[in-house]
Amino acid sequence: MGKLKRNERIAAMMKILGDHPNKIYTLNYFTERFQSAKSTISEDLVIVKQAMEKMSLGRIETIAGAAGGVKFIPQTNKSQNKELLMEMSTMLMDPDRILPGGFLYMADIIYWPSIIQNLGVIFASQFSHKSVDYIVTVETKGIPLAMMVAKALNLPLVILRSDSKVTEGSTVSISYVSGSSGKIQQMSLAKRAIKPNSKVIFIDDFMKAGGTAKGVMDMMREFDVTVEGIGVLISTKGPENKLVENYTSLLILDEVNERDGIIDIYPNPKLI
Amino acid sequence: MGKLKRNERIAAMMKILGDHPNKIYTLNYFTERFQSAKSTISEDLVIVKQAMEKMSLGRIETIAGAAGGVKFIPQTNKSQNKELLMEMSTMLMDPDRILPGGFLYMADIIYWPSIIQNLGVIFASQFSHKSVDYIVTVETKGIPLAMMVAKALNLPLVILRSDSKVTEGSTVSISYVSGSSGKIQQMSLAKRAIKPNSKVIFIDDFMKAGGTAKGVMDMMREFDVTVEGIGVLISTKGPENKLVENYTSLLILDEVNERDGIIDIYPNPKLI
Repeated sequence: MGKLKRNERIAAMMKILGDHPNKIYTLNYFTERFQSAKSTISEDLVIVKQAMEKMSLGRIETIAGAAGGVKFIPQTNKSQNKELLMEMSTMLMDPDRILPGGFLYMADIIYWPSIIQNLGVIFASQFSHKSVDYIVTVETKGIPLAMMVAKALNLPLVILRSDSKVTEGSTVSISYVSGSSGKIQQMSLAKRAIKPNSKVIFIDDFMKAGGTAKGVMDMMREFDVTVEGIGVLISTKGPENKLVENYTSLLILDEVNERDGIIDIYPNPKLI
Repeated sequence: MGKLKRNERIAAMMKILGDHPNKIYTLNYFTERFQSAKSTISEDLVIVKQAMEKMSLGRIETIAGAAGGVKFIPQTNKSQNKELLMEMSTMLMDPDRILPGGFLYMADIIYWPSIIQNLGVIFASQFSHKSVDYIVTVETKGIPLAMMVAKALNLPLVILRSDSKVTEGSTVSISYVSGSSGKIQQMSLAKRAIKPNSKVIFIDDFMKAGGTAKGVMDMMREFDVTVEGIGVLISTKGPENKLVENYTSLLILDEVNERDGIIDIYPNPKLI
């Protein structure tokens, strides 16, 4: 390849930084990859930084020192949150989504990559000031969202299973009461999946009474791990006193009226 | 905000295109967002296109006509595949990964977003010529990888569950024989999860005899859906005759020797 022009370098640099949010790239990485001087790369980065700020597309942060470099930090503002969460609410209010028992069909939305990726960035924005080691979720429906949060924060994902598997080695299992069904359920995690004294954020798709979240906190205590934050896509308005405090919910579900075909769901006012 | 300079526009444009691979953006989208003339945006796109080509970071494709626009197509070449898959093989050959029964502990790798994202792009490259409607996987371990393939191809993800759930409405269930365990298992899918006469690609983390893949093909037949491709992260070398033909495996596992602590795994020679 020939040497790139500044314009081209900036496009390539943005692609590399944007693909791996919160990953630190050294200046040397770019000087080698683009065969350019450090001063040139620094000037390029100033331009990239300005572009992200002016268009509210996230933030470029420079880390000084020997272990220094540059990273891209995904970020959303309240008006971006509002646009996305209003759109989500509208999609979810479609009466066709009501299932027998007053459940909401959501699999199409919570498994749709481009939507879930944008929701992951909202959570990453909310939790970006916390220093954590893992994103934790329970199988199955929260996995895609948790994966996208993990990607945006450049953290490994840990999935708690509903029973222990031979393909995971020795596991720790606990019982918990699922708040929505009232049933006793199990969750299980490989001993080697998470290091003691770590900090984690728990992500899930739905919270009613908070039984699953409480189960995850109990499980993490077994591993000497602290839950620093809880994020759910949808929490129900009632019961108001959940089994866990301090969770961030993107959407609030007030009511599913099966008879009249009415679903009342809206963005969390704190985020918009 | 002030109007952006060309350099800044290119950074922002690359960020937008790169964030949503295979999504078509109209020229109007960019002229409005950047308050710039069509001719200016077209010139910007030529530069972005050249940068991607020169650095082998993917491809920018322009679609002519009324529904036209521009999209970013993720793409890897054989040397990029080789680098990533050799690195994966080295990680997986660590004798500490051997579990009782000769299983390999892989949860850390297959749930690590930045790795799995790069693997997703390899699959997207392999399947980019196929015109499909969904990416399909079975819970649980293949979900993160399947999600990343779906993201790279801008397709919805469909997750087959191991039992039917009240939160999914009416479902279709089938039984299948898991090739590795020989056990009869169930898979289940909401009727509304997938449209009849669709085309899908099945993605999973592991294939031994191919029982799960065959189960997925049977299930798709129930929905009048065609499986256009099968992609697995790891397939075992034996049995050579799997229950399905025409699958793409990124890595091939020849042997896990529990006694001597030897794991023989290597990249699929066709991809590197």
